[in-house]
Amino acid sequence: MGEKIPASISRTIQTKLVLPPDTNHMGTIFGGTVLAYIDEIAAITAMKHSGKIVVTASIDTVTFLSSAKVGDILTLEGVVISTGRTSMEVYVKVKCQHSETGVETLTTTAILTMVAVDSEGLPTKVNGVIPETEEEKVLFKDAQARRERRLMIR
Amino acid sequence: MGEKIPASISRTIQTKLVLPPDTNHMGTIFGGTVLAYIDEIAAITAMKHSGKIVVTASIDTVTFLSSAKVGDILTLEGVVISTGRTSMEVYVKVKCQHSETGVETLTTTAILTMVAVDSEGLPTKVNGVIPETEEEKVLFKDAQARRERRLMIR
Amino acid sequence: MGEKIPASISRTIQTKLVLPPDTNHMGTIFGGTVLAYIDEIAAITAMKHSGKIVVTASIDTVTFLSSAKVGDILTLEGVVISTGRTSMEVYVKVKCQHSETGVETLTTTAILTMVAVDSEGLPTKVNGVIPETEEEKVLFKDAQARRERRLMIR
Amino acid sequence: MGEKIPASISRTIQTKLVLPPDTNHMGTIFGGTVLAYIDEIAAITAMKHSGKIVVTASIDTVTFLSSAKVGDILTLEGVVISTGRTSMEVYVKVKCQHSETGVETLTTTAILTMVAVDSEGLPTKVNGVIPETEEEKVLFKDAQARRERRLMIR
Amino acid sequence: MGEKIPASISRTIQTKLVLPPDTNHMGTIFGGTVLAYIDEIAAITAMKHSGKIVVTASIDTVTFLSSAKVGDILTLEGVVISTGRTSMEVYVKVKCQHSETGVETLTTTAILTMVAVDSEGLPTKVNGVIPETEEEKVLFKDAQARRERRLMIR
Amino acid sequence: MGEKIPASISRTIQTKLVLPPDTNHMGTIFGGTVLAYIDEIAAITAMKHSGKIVVTASIDTVTFLSSAKVGDILTLEGVVISTGRTSMEVYVKVKCQHSETGVETLTTTAILTMVAVDSEGLPTKVNGVIPETEEEKVLFKDAQARRERRLMIR
Ligand SMILES: CC(C)(COP(=O)(O)OP(=O)(O)OC[C@H]1O[C@@H](n2cnc3c(N)ncnc32)[C@H](O)[C@@H]1OP(=O)(O)O)[C@@H](O)C(=O)NCCC(=O)NCCS
Ligand SMILES: CC(C)(COP(=O)(O)OP(=O)(O)OC[C@H]1O[C@@H](n2cnc3c(N)ncnc32)[C@H](O)[C@@H]1OP(=O)(O)O)[C@@H](O)C(=O)NCCC(=O)NCCS
Ligand SMILES: CC(C)(COP(=O)(O)OP(=O)(O)OC[C@H]1O[C@@H](n2cnc3c(N)ncnc32)[C@H](O)[C@@H]1OP(=O)(O)O)[C@@H](O)C(=O)NCCC(=O)NCCS
Ligand SMILES: CC(C)(COP(=O)(O)OP(=O)(O)OC[C@H]1O[C@@H](n2cnc3c(N)ncnc32)[C@H](O)[C@@H]1OP(=O)(O)O)[C@@H](O)C(=O)NCCC(=O)NCCS
Repeated sequence: MGEKIPASISRTIQTKLVLPPDTNHMGTIFGGTVLAYIDEIAAITAMKHSGKIVVTASIDTVTFLSSAKVGDILTLEGVVISTGRTSMEVYVKVKCQHSETGVETLTTTAILTMVAVDSEGLPTKVNGVIPETEEEKVLFKDAQARRERRLMIR
Repeated sequence: MGEKIPASISRTIQTKLVLPPDTNHMGTIFGGTVLAYIDEIAAITAMKHSGKIVVTASIDTVTFLSSAKVGDILTLEGVVISTGRTSMEVYVKVKCQHSETGVETLTTTAILTMVAVDSEGLPTKVNGVIPETEEEKVLFKDAQARRERRLMIR
Repeated sequence: MGEKIPASISRTIQTKLVLPPDTNHMGTIFGGTVLAYIDEIAAITAMKHSGKIVVTASIDTVTFLSSAKVGDILTLEGVVISTGRTSMEVYVKVKCQHSETGVETLTTTAILTMVAVDSEGLPTKVNGVIPETEEEKVLFKDAQARRERRLMIR
Repeated sequence: MGEKIPASISRTIQTKLVLPPDTNHMGTIFGGTVLAYIDEIAAITAMKHSGKIVVTASIDTVTFLSSAKVGDILTLEGVVISTGRTSMEVYVKVKCQHSETGVETLTTTAILTMVAVDSEGLPTKVNGVIPETEEEKVLFKDAQARRERRLMIR
Repeated sequence: MGEKIPASISRTIQTKLVLPPDTNHMGTIFGGTVLAYIDEIAAITAMKHSGKIVVTASIDTVTFLSSAKVGDILTLEGVVISTGRTSMEVYVKVKCQHSETGVETLTTTAILTMVAVDSEGLPTKVNGVIPETEEEKVLFKDAQARRERRLMIR
Repeated sequence: MGEKIPASISRTIQTKLVLPPDTNHMGTIFGGTVLAYIDEIAAITAMKHSGKIVVTASIDTVTFLSSAKVGDILTLEGVVISTGRTSMEVYVKVKCQHSETGVETLTTTAILTMVAVDSEGLPTKVNGVIPETEEEKVLFKDAQARRERRLMIR
């Protein structure tokens, strides 16, 4: 797997103000908008880790725990938590700061598999990752189990 | 569960031309764009079934089997395949017609859970569904199993 | 005119949820948004028929019979109804399902002339079309008259 | 028809740089983008004349005489050329300055009927217009003929 | 500095209807939207003067004197007011016509430095400018003082 | 000035992947896109500090030191560096990680004045700020000088 680089290289933060075009006519954000944000930060995170162009191979089940409204602030954090030969697992956490109360809630978490590709679009090797925080270490340890579950569903 | 209505009421077709803003600089569509399209058609499908505003509760694992490029045509089909008291499972199939070859490939399939809400944003009852095609009948039969798997992961 | 292919090859359906950014501050959809949707489906329809890149040559008079509001669902249908050497006439029908009443009204119909072009942007030959439905057969028969009226106005 | 106000009150100019998202993958602007621009300037023009919210009732046949490419500059001019009780005819001229040659060509002209509406969406009275330039005077004179042709098509 | 061309060659007008996606949830336009409009018209203005691609080198302090709301009409005017070897100063004036009152107020003015670049992205020579209106002449005279202030801040 | 809160409350990070629609046809990002990003992060930063809706009162001279291309990653950081009665100065730093070389350069820095407003749009009181880093302390100290310079220009 070649060189291993620390998770801090890929760690990425994104902040989004929820605006009317992102919401339905009741002012609640679309699930699809949040999914697009999650994919965007996962791509940036994996590009930072690999220094390559990446494509999304899969996204594991996403459950929306709480909603966000116009004026709320979403914070997304992404980090590479495990790697294969050409693929990277990216963990994304989405929190929402509600504008009226100031209270912050967890909106969702997601795990995506991003694959590094060369200029022909063919999968290409990536460096390994060294998990750093406690959460990253736990997620790293369970990577093999998640990989097997994914192949089962496929 | 009250009245039951046929799946044909909700069946929805969407056609999208892949354009430069939807793609990375190699002209490959972003996973996030496809996810946003999937959520959009799922919302329309569930609105047609329920006649209510809907929010996305969850999306089951999505695997991108093949990519789409600028100039390709994506066709999305959505249909309600099972219902709970206030939730609807929507099955979405995404196919891609490649502009150069004319060949059509399966890009991905997805199952989303959409919940009908009233004007206060509170879950509200929906009609049951009568599956019609063979595929819909199989998906209807397995709804309970999927529901349990989702609760397990949560 | 070479080979003739059935209208079913090009028939295309599009479904759009009317969202705030598509509307004025009274929540009524812009005519320009509907026109852009009509042109988009006409382009996809003509690309499916010809397997080529297409450009819009003209759009016949469009009358907006009824309006659409935020939350309504627009359904667009496009089909090639006649062909010249390099041009295709596309017929587009736009219906609106009103969210409050569930009632569906006809928003508008439109006829566009799309021209197939090669990689230099020069007009290039297209196959003929075999109309299938009664509506398509009537529209096919009147193509010559519309063509003459267009040349008159020019 | 109440008061009459000069055409200069409504005359509006718009300049647009053609950008990649407005074009197909050959860099040629979509007809739909130009139609949306035409409707946007017609709405602004009619709002300036009437001081009211307006909706698009119809757009007469539009023929695209020449195309525009990424990097070209489109200039649109709109002016109210005639009025009914609640409707205004807006004349829009679109020119394109080609970036490579600096040469300016006529892209298209269009005539739209915009209707002023009150806060209930009901048609509401507008002032008359006094044409000023030679072109405006000719267009004003023929308004009745165009009106009759439109009713015939309806 | 080679040939000098009159300011009228570059003078550009832009009209924008303030729409919901451009505003916060109180319906007030974002400063960032206005800044993007200012940069867009400055680029078009400088492209018309130079016949070249341009990049923004700097924008002098911008003060927003009054706000704009959904439904208001912004008018932007741009003109080249002075030139260096490869750079052009563009003066942009933004006015707002308020939809409720019809009253027009000054939103802001801005001065940007745009640099003409060749196909490698390297600065390339531009023609000089001949100021025409009184305002342009005053702005032309003070160009040297502004240039020195900018270098001081750098 | 009431309570004082630490700068860490408002500190905000934003990561943006430069995509084709944000760039001219040479693939260089528009100055206006960067200005819109700067204003967006400044608004979020000031909302976090004040817990109120904010409007942009002014943005001090911005100089673009280096450009960004499609595929590059922009990182923006915002923090409140000083406050008045109703206004907050926000400092924004923009860096660019170039995709080909991995090298990071400073794109620009900017200082904006954001004003907290109540539901009527009237300026409303904000808490003071306690600068934390060395850079923040220096910027805090010079706030009065910048304020005077701004009033002079006005
Ligand atoms: C992802 C993709 C490149 C994999 O191609 P492939 O021919 O299966 O290539 P390989 O078998 O060499 O697999 C490459 C890597 O992808 C991983 N992968 C493949 N399918 C996967 C899935 N469903 N979930 C997670 N990872 C997957 C493999 O495990 C392998 O990882 P490794 O090198 O770390 O072991 C290919 O399926 C693809 O192009 N999909 C479309 C991606 C895309 O465009 N997404 C955007 C929306 S359509
Ligand atoms: C335009 C509209 C308001 C007209 O409503 P209506 O019930 O026909 O109202 P009226 O008969 O009072 O006509 C109002 C005006 O519209 C004009 N009008 C109606 N149909 C027209 C058409 N096809 N072409 C041109 N003008 C038309 C009438 O001549 C009349 O003008 P006048 O007052 O100057 O004589 C109505 O058809 C409508 O709401 N259409 C949808 C508009 C819209 O939302 N467009 C955006 C895209 S869907
Ligand atoms: C603007 C830019 C091309 C100048 O490059 P440079 O290496 O300084 O080039 P030069 O020294 O030859 O200067 C070129 C011109 O730019 C002017 N310039 C440079 N910095 C400037 C500044 N901060 N403000 C105004 N003008 C400036 C110079 O005065 C010179 O003008 P002149 O030829 O009329 O005398 C370069 O800084 C750049 O590419 N910046 C990024 C531009 C960009 O991409 N903006 C979009 C958002 S990032
Ligand atoms: C910013 C605005 C609210 C200030 O209104 P005002 O009537 O001048 O209000 P005040 O005199 O009470 O000033 C309020 C604060 O704004 C500050 N302010 C006013 N003009 C300013 C300027 N040009 N630069 C920086 N701060 C400024 C004042 O110093 C004061 O700050 P303080 O309370 O901390 O001392 C008003 O000019 C406005 O609405 N501008 C448009 C804002 C907007 O909509 N921007 C988006 C794009 S148009």
